[in-house]
Amino acid sequence: MPAQSLIIDCDPGQDDAVAILLALGSPQDVELLAVTAVAGNVPLTRTQENARSVVSLAGRQDVPVYAGSDRPLVRPLVTAEYVHGKTGLDGADLPSPAQPLAGGHASQAIIDIVRSRPERSVTICPVGPMTNVALAMRLAPDIVPRIRQIVLMGGAIGLGNITPAAEFNIYVDPHAADIVFRSGVPLVMHGLDVTHKARCTPERLERIADLGTAVGRAVYGMLTFYGKYDQHRGAGGGAPLHDPCAVAYVIQPDLFGGRDCHVAIEVASEPSIGRTLVDWGGVTGQAANCKVIDTIDDDRFFEMLTERLARL
Amino acid sequence: MPAQSLIIDCDPGQDDAVAILLALGSPQDVELLAVTAVAGNVPLTRTQENARSVVSLAGRQDVPVYAGSDRPLVRPLVTAEYVHGKTGLDGADLPSPAQPLAGGHASQAIIDIVRSRPERSVTICPVGPMTNVALAMRLAPDIVPRIRQIVLMGGAIGLGNITPAAEFNIYVDPHAADIVFRSGVPLVMHGLDVTHKARCTPERLERIADLGTAVGRAVYGMLTFYGKYDQHRGAGGGAPLHDPCAVAYVIQPDLFGGRDCHVAIEVASEPSIGRTLVDWGGVTGQAANCKVIDTIDDDRFFEMLTERLARL
Amino acid sequence: MPAQSLIIDCDPGQDDAVAILLALGSPQDVELLAVTAVAGNVPLTRTQENARSVVSLAGRQDVPVYAGSDRPLVRPLVTAEYVHGKTGLDGADLPSPAQPLAGGHASQAIIDIVRSRPERSVTICPVGPMTNVALAMRLAPDIVPRIRQIVLMGGAIGLGNITPAAEFNIYVDPHAADIVFRSGVPLVMHGLDVTHKARCTPERLERIADLGTAVGRAVYGMLTFYGKYDQHRGAGGGAPLHDPCAVAYVIQPDLFGGRDCHVAIEVASEPSIGRTLVDWGGVTGQAANCKVIDTIDDDRFFEMLTERLARL
Amino acid sequence: MPAQSLIIDCDPGQDDAVAILLALGSPQDVELLAVTAVAGNVPLTRTQENARSVVSLAGRQDVPVYAGSDRPLVRPLVTAEYVHGKTGLDGADLPSPAQPLAGGHASQAIIDIVRSRPERSVTICPVGPMTNVALAMRLAPDIVPRIRQIVLMGGAIGLGNITPAAEFNIYVDPHAADIVFRSGVPLVMHGLDVTHKARCTPERLERIADLGTAVGRAVYGMLTFYGKYDQHRGAGGGAPLHDPCAVAYVIQPDLFGGRDCHVAIEVASEPSIGRTLVDWGGVTGQAANCKVIDTIDDDRFFEMLTERLARL
Repeated sequence: MPAQSLIIDCDPGQDDAVAILLALGSPQDVELLAVTAVAGNVPLTRTQENARSVVSLAGRQDVPVYAGSDRPLVRPLVTAEYVHGKTGLDGADLPSPAQPLAGGHASQAIIDIVRSRPERSVTICPVGPMTNVALAMRLAPDIVPRIRQIVLMGGAIGLGNITPAAEFNIYVDPHAADIVFRSGVPLVMHGLDVTHKARCTPERLERIADLGTAVGRAVYGMLTFYGKYDQHRGAGGGAPLHDPCAVAYVIQPDLFGGRDCHVAIEVASEPSIGRTLVDWGGVTGQAANCKVIDTIDDDRFFEMLTERLARL
Repeated sequence: MPAQSLIIDCDPGQDDAVAILLALGSPQDVELLAVTAVAGNVPLTRTQENARSVVSLAGRQDVPVYAGSDRPLVRPLVTAEYVHGKTGLDGADLPSPAQPLAGGHASQAIIDIVRSRPERSVTICPVGPMTNVALAMRLAPDIVPRIRQIVLMGGAIGLGNITPAAEFNIYVDPHAADIVFRSGVPLVMHGLDVTHKARCTPERLERIADLGTAVGRAVYGMLTFYGKYDQHRGAGGGAPLHDPCAVAYVIQPDLFGGRDCHVAIEVASEPSIGRTLVDWGGVTGQAANCKVIDTIDDDRFFEMLTERLARL
Repeated sequence: MPAQSLIIDCDPGQDDAVAILLALGSPQDVELLAVTAVAGNVPLTRTQENARSVVSLAGRQDVPVYAGSDRPLVRPLVTAEYVHGKTGLDGADLPSPAQPLAGGHASQAIIDIVRSRPERSVTICPVGPMTNVALAMRLAPDIVPRIRQIVLMGGAIGLGNITPAAEFNIYVDPHAADIVFRSGVPLVMHGLDVTHKARCTPERLERIADLGTAVGRAVYGMLTFYGKYDQHRGAGGGAPLHDPCAVAYVIQPDLFGGRDCHVAIEVASEPSIGRTLVDWGGVTGQAANCKVIDTIDDDRFFEMLTERLARL
Repeated sequence: MPAQSLIIDCDPGQDDAVAILLALGSPQDVELLAVTAVAGNVPLTRTQENARSVVSLAGRQDVPVYAGSDRPLVRPLVTAEYVHGKTGLDGADLPSPAQPLAGGHASQAIIDIVRSRPERSVTICPVGPMTNVALAMRLAPDIVPRIRQIVLMGGAIGLGNITPAAEFNIYVDPHAADIVFRSGVPLVMHGLDVTHKARCTPERLERIADLGTAVGRAVYGMLTFYGKYDQHRGAGGGAPLHDPCAVAYVIQPDLFGGRDCHVAIEVASEPSIGRTLVDWGGVTGQAANCKVIDTIDDDRFFEMLTERLARL
């Protein structure tokens, strides 16, 4: 029986897809209880369908997929088709979902799962805007102390990507991020600082292609498409595997290094909105609320990722 | 059969109590489908119990009371015991609730009711912070076009009361207000401009006492206590009956006058947060999203109120 | 010898012109030391020329006119030709200025005058954006405690005019206003609440025309043009004489009523920027920094104004 | 005759002192026209006296020193005695100033110098809060196109130092920085990203001590004191020589590398205020307004610095 049980809250997105597959390929380490979809990289109608396609690709239609919020808590939705393509999973020809959507809102599913499982046993990995998680916390404050940890992809110590200040996931729903960061749940943040070090180089991509499986082919196709955006922007070295970092941390935290510090979210001013104000230097005097990851053993990370994909 | 069906979303509060009683005393005009409680004037544990006491006082324990959000969407909770007393209903010795809480979160109740009733038949009267309503809209966007109208107490054209900029209900949850005001649902706003004209003078209060009923005695006690705050602040003329204005509008809109205009909510800057930016003069060029009430026929209002209380 | 000496800091503007003329017609009450021009209603090139034309009209080319800031401290300039016409003084055929600009920046002139005059003898009447005054305070902090009082036109307790939140003068340079309101100088604020009660009705305008003087004709022409804006907006009763209220207060404060309270300026959030957050109800617990005027004896005000214009 | 003429606008501060000495030791490269002092690291009374002591130490009491703003444009002053000591130049026993303050405000001096010199010949090096420079631009917009370039120390691409978002100089007067960054003057920004690479290691400090001159001894003493703050904070490798980077760039720009990009200043929201929003990745689509420096040849930098100090 795996040590941890996991909910992945996501907006697939090619890197979200790889994150789900990484979890599904690691049943000895994590039990994937559910995938919850949110609007983000593409609209909700796409992300929930994509999530179902991905679990179907892995032959795991038993994992329930829930649809959640179709927009952020307060602000209008911003999407990123310029990165992920029109479908969100451009680059691979995925199977149609073998399963229907599970009933009920994703936030309610999160609530029900956390309530029904032992205290502090469920880890949540939000790798998109955190609307579903924040709504769950507001609808059912009793679940907050029951969550084991939230291991998220989002934010940045340094530069953002959608604006100079902000990373996409936090930018899209800064109010949700603010709720999560002030919740008191143990947090681990994988921001751009670390995910930009998890680059799927051509060599690494070839090893995935060499798996010769349907999953290998699909991941190869998706990451080839997805890598074009960074290539186009002049960032060499392959696509950054943002979202899989968070799941990899759940499986094997010693791949990563970071620092406990206070992180606040800018929610008020447009030019800075969505910035993760990481007190890396300890200048604010505020107590740490988050482990902020900045380093990764990327060779071991890709080794593990490839091995786990091979099992599917 | 009454023309409209109604949900009152509230944080009782003496004036909330009178608003509920006004609805219950007007069965020929409105069917009260549910009362949903939210944290505001006092914490949620009080407001939901108070709401149950009030329907019990009216012998209407068949009206379900739901508990909702125990805090605003994004900001920490601010309460107003300095106005309403420690219990929220100080001044009357109300019966213990004759009924248990209805099951489920208030926002889910709002969703279920609006979905189960004919399109555009349900009016919602939020007379506290609008957290429950905003959460319902985010959890179930499909209900938004099904709501007949939202007739709310909150905001101000002129001065606020909790800050120079903001009225209490909007101040406590400005993000929820922002969601509601940008929802597209037909809105009617009763701000301080009109509610400060609905003053329960000693004469009017005496007429309520003269009803000689349990309800009359309870309302007399509550409003006597509640009037002390404004008296103490030097505002003569009796307590302003904020929340009953919204319910009275549902019953008899011709008691009120106002203007269709655009209203935005300030959510970004602390000194102004929660201000209802009412474009009364039409200077922004933005289309009207709200009927903003500024006048009341207060004699007829109190006549109606007293008569309806008499029926309970 | 008049009791007070005065600097009018302005952006003429028809009502600014009347304010200057009111001061020039009241030599027994106030000595007008200088007129300082700022960008506001129209650009600086216009306002400084207009100011010179107005003192020339009154035959007082001995009063020095200085040009100051051509834009607000921080934000880009916004002008109001839609109210004042292209020249800023549309409606009258004023003489060309009989005098050149005085040398040096208006802020330097304010500094030099305040330093050279007895302590607490100089009153400043800013009736446009307060850029010049704020710059003077920052360049020469020593003048701050030497200023007798600042009697300004700007702000609002209730609704703004350029936005729902803000009155034009404060909106154009909120940072300057913030500096002035936090300076510690005794302040008297004439906002829209009072200036909208100083309406130049057709009857009052006729009495000015009846003076039969060049000044009377010019004022009649200017206010006839200027009144069209409010007329067009559906506000009857004649043009509001915003700026003359401030000068009239210096001459005869008992024409006005108000309240000492704390006023803060919103400088951070776009929808509310430039709001004067008037703590009329004393809810902030902050000490009063301003006398906020809300009432005027408008009959006596127009009587005085007409009489003073008659002397020119 | 040197290629460039220079004004150093500063708040000494040990690193400011070294920046001044670097300029004075490089007469073949830059003519130091004036030193203008501003409140920042310590109050103005200290910074102007310190600036005079430093030019006196170098025997250059002919270089005029002007006192400017005693506080930021809009916000209250914040100082940094915890870094620089009570005097701002703790660690050295500097001579009393051999010269009086030059007359007039620093901003006026900047205006007069820029107007009197050939167009685009004067470089300004602001190495403290930019209040003086911003005030000069607002008082005399005509000087803006006459300035050759502004080479400043301030800001950060990555983490701030006084807050997670902001570097001290920009934080102290974000509105001044906003004015400068939107002025259109060619800008070169040396933020923490580069200045933290200009570390005065013990070996480098010894070489300065080995100069055996009064200047060498003073710099050694100042930087020994000043280095304790970073040492205490656990940042090894010696004190970062923030301010000398800007002057070094004027003398020998090929010591530095950077990128032209758009930089905006956050002025609205407290947690992020003073952040330099550097569009390093070109995501905003806004045209570059600044060359942002991120690399330094630190060996050559210290070689040059030591050699120039040796000449004094």
